[in-house]
Amino acid sequence: MTTLDDLPTPCLVLDLGILKRNLAAMADAIARHPGVRLRPHLKTAKSREVAALAAPGGGPITVSTLAEARYFAEGGWRDQIYAVGIAPAKLDAVAALNAAGADVKVITDDPDAAAAIAAHPGPVRALVEVDVGEGRGGVAPDSEALLAVAARLGPRLVGVLAHAGHSYAGRSPGEMEAIAEAERAGVVRAAERLRAAGHRVEIVSLGSSPTALHARSLAGVTEVRAGVYMFGDLFQMQLGTHGPEDIALTVLASVIGRKPERNAVLLDAGALALSKDRSTQAAPRDYGFGLMLDRAGRPSFGDAIVVRTHQEHGEVRGESGPLPFDRLPVGARVRVAPNHACLTAAAYDRYHVVEGGEQVIAVWGRVNGW
Amino acid sequence: MTTLDDLPTPCLVLDLGILKRNLAAMADAIARHPGVRLRPHLKTAKSREVAALAAPGGGPITVSTLAEARYFAEGGWRDQIYAVGIAPAKLDAVAALNAAGADVKVITDDPDAAAAIAAHPGPVRALVEVDVGEGRGGVAPDSEALLAVAARLGPRLVGVLAHAGHSYAGRSPGEMEAIAEAERAGVVRAAERLRAAGHRVEIVSLGSSPTALHARSLAGVTEVRAGVYMFGDLFQMQLGTHGPEDIALTVLASVIGRKPERNAVLLDAGALALSKDRSTQAAPRDYGFGLMLDRAGRPSFGDAIVVRTHQEHGEVRGESGPLPFDRLPVGARVRVAPNHACLTAAAYDRYHVVEGGEQVIAVWGRVNGW
Repeated sequence: MTTLDDLPTPCLVLDLGILKRNLAAMADAIARHPGVRLRPHLKTAKSREVAALAAPGGGPITVSTLAEARYFAEGGWRDQIYAVGIAPAKLDAVAALNAAGADVKVITDDPDAAAAIAAHPGPVRALVEVDVGEGRGGVAPDSEALLAVAARLGPRLVGVLAHAGHSYAGRSPGEMEAIAEAERAGVVRAAERLRAAGHRVEIVSLGSSPTALHARSLAGVTEVRAGVYMFGDLFQMQLGTHGPEDIALTVLASVIGRKPERNAVLLDAGALALSKDRSTQAAPRDYGFGLMLDRAGRPSFGDAIVVRTHQEHGEVRGESGPLPFDRLPVGARVRVAPNHACLTAAAYDRYHVVEGGEQVIAVWGRVNGW
Repeated sequence: MTTLDDLPTPCLVLDLGILKRNLAAMADAIARHPGVRLRPHLKTAKSREVAALAAPGGGPITVSTLAEARYFAEGGWRDQIYAVGIAPAKLDAVAALNAAGADVKVITDDPDAAAAIAAHPGPVRALVEVDVGEGRGGVAPDSEALLAVAARLGPRLVGVLAHAGHSYAGRSPGEMEAIAEAERAGVVRAAERLRAAGHRVEIVSLGSSPTALHARSLAGVTEVRAGVYMFGDLFQMQLGTHGPEDIALTVLASVIGRKPERNAVLLDAGALALSKDRSTQAAPRDYGFGLMLDRAGRPSFGDAIVVRTHQEHGEVRGESGPLPFDRLPVGARVRVAPNHACLTAAAYDRYHVVEGGEQVIAVWGRVNGW
């Protein structure tokens, strides 16, 4: 029987009970909208074992890399959207997956890329990316560019897709609701304009974890995409989408130094093990590079924050009082809740799965890289 | 013949000519100090092929993880220092490597860890980590703790080790020289105190790329450790240790979106492909998440900076004038010089090696994880 004491540190720990609860919460949120389906984004988990729970039966999924598309297609997930603007050189790989039985749809907001998709000899379909206020990729719902890109795609057009990434700057349920409604209205408006121009628009897709959980209406939408809700993290906790007990993913680390004179310990989880993500920096509570929990995953050290990282060192300081150094000798094992689960998980090739306790009940894989 | 056009993006490109020039510059810097040897830190490169050039003949090396220690030991690099404070649970793995022929030395600044090292049944030797002003790990050169840790190690003591990581905050050659001299004086003082107490101190080790290049005297030191000098990056360029033409490591990326209305392009190199490192933030010039170069690696777009990253998107803005959109269609290939080579490289499992041109002359491996 493997326990947390037997694992090399740093490593990833995934709590199955919390994962299942987070999946159920999202399923409940989506079930309030009849006719709308969830297309989980696997960019966070990058794991077939997680996908088997989040998108059972080879259900529709979203991916962010060709490596994910290939890995999940070979694992039985046919219906995919590769939700990062396509570079034409990647179309051969997508078409090859589709020729072998998958249905990986790409996205674009560019007329030249649309022309390349239309001209590709293999089976490739695409959605037009619509900008609903994030200001990253996408054409505006009322733009001429929307019609131009769709016209270039011609019969390869399968739908429209929006991502309200700016929901991450929302600070209250009211703000999230407003952003969710603007996301819905924008993508539906784009779909209506394309239909009025004679196009067939099967898929009207939107999503981000906060807007998926906070949307009041999804009228006109066919599907919702979300990913980080599966694991949760400190940033999602600051957004109010997760409580502190809903963070399924943590990093198991060992104490490698003690500095009582500055109320600090050094961990063997640094910039590579946690990532340099600082998404809580502008949030109500700044968690530095993560929050130190005890080995059982409980917040029993108060506000013990990773304040500094070097490549393999993380320095934790007690921000709400003296650290209990008697419980933190060199070699002691602790867990760190991450700022941003997607980036922290990316440093690892596997999950050590627990269910509440210290026993490792499974090891699950991940597909990294491109 | 594989060229940069045949590679999937994003991917790592390593220029062999620049790498060799950087290695020669460090060798020249160390050669000014007779009797001092270089112990290259492989935490940046994590590659046997790079180590074969940087530490030829299985020469002494520094590593930052057990995975590196194992990979390089099996590749023929016997003499290693694992330069991150040891957790006692890792001693079995180190002793196993040493029993199989390696000589991996560990470091500690903790009396309990020192006692665990002394009591370990396998072959393990250790250096005492000395703090020369960085304020991370280590005991002060004049502290009682130095003597206490050494006494616990007993005959397992092999030397002292310091790292002037605070040299990265230096802003002029004069400041670097001063930090380098404080690093030297501190670690030599620690060695002298231990010798006066009857200990044998074979290794007196210090290093960081800036202090290695700027030290005026290394009297009393036996070896210098440095790593990032091999590749260089924008942060090292800001420190003055590398020129813009000395950055050997870049990320090859494709344009996936064009936003002339905000003078921006989107690349398929985002937070995972570049890392979220922002080390140039407090430097004289803030390069955001990287500087966009042309496909040949030349800075021909002016100040084209990656100003925003999402997981798989990097947004580049022209900061010194309009971007040449005619040269940047969707699908165009560019290269991005990284802020911090160690963190950017860690997202990839291989290097695509070029020598000036577009032809890929080799593919070299990396050892990631722990």
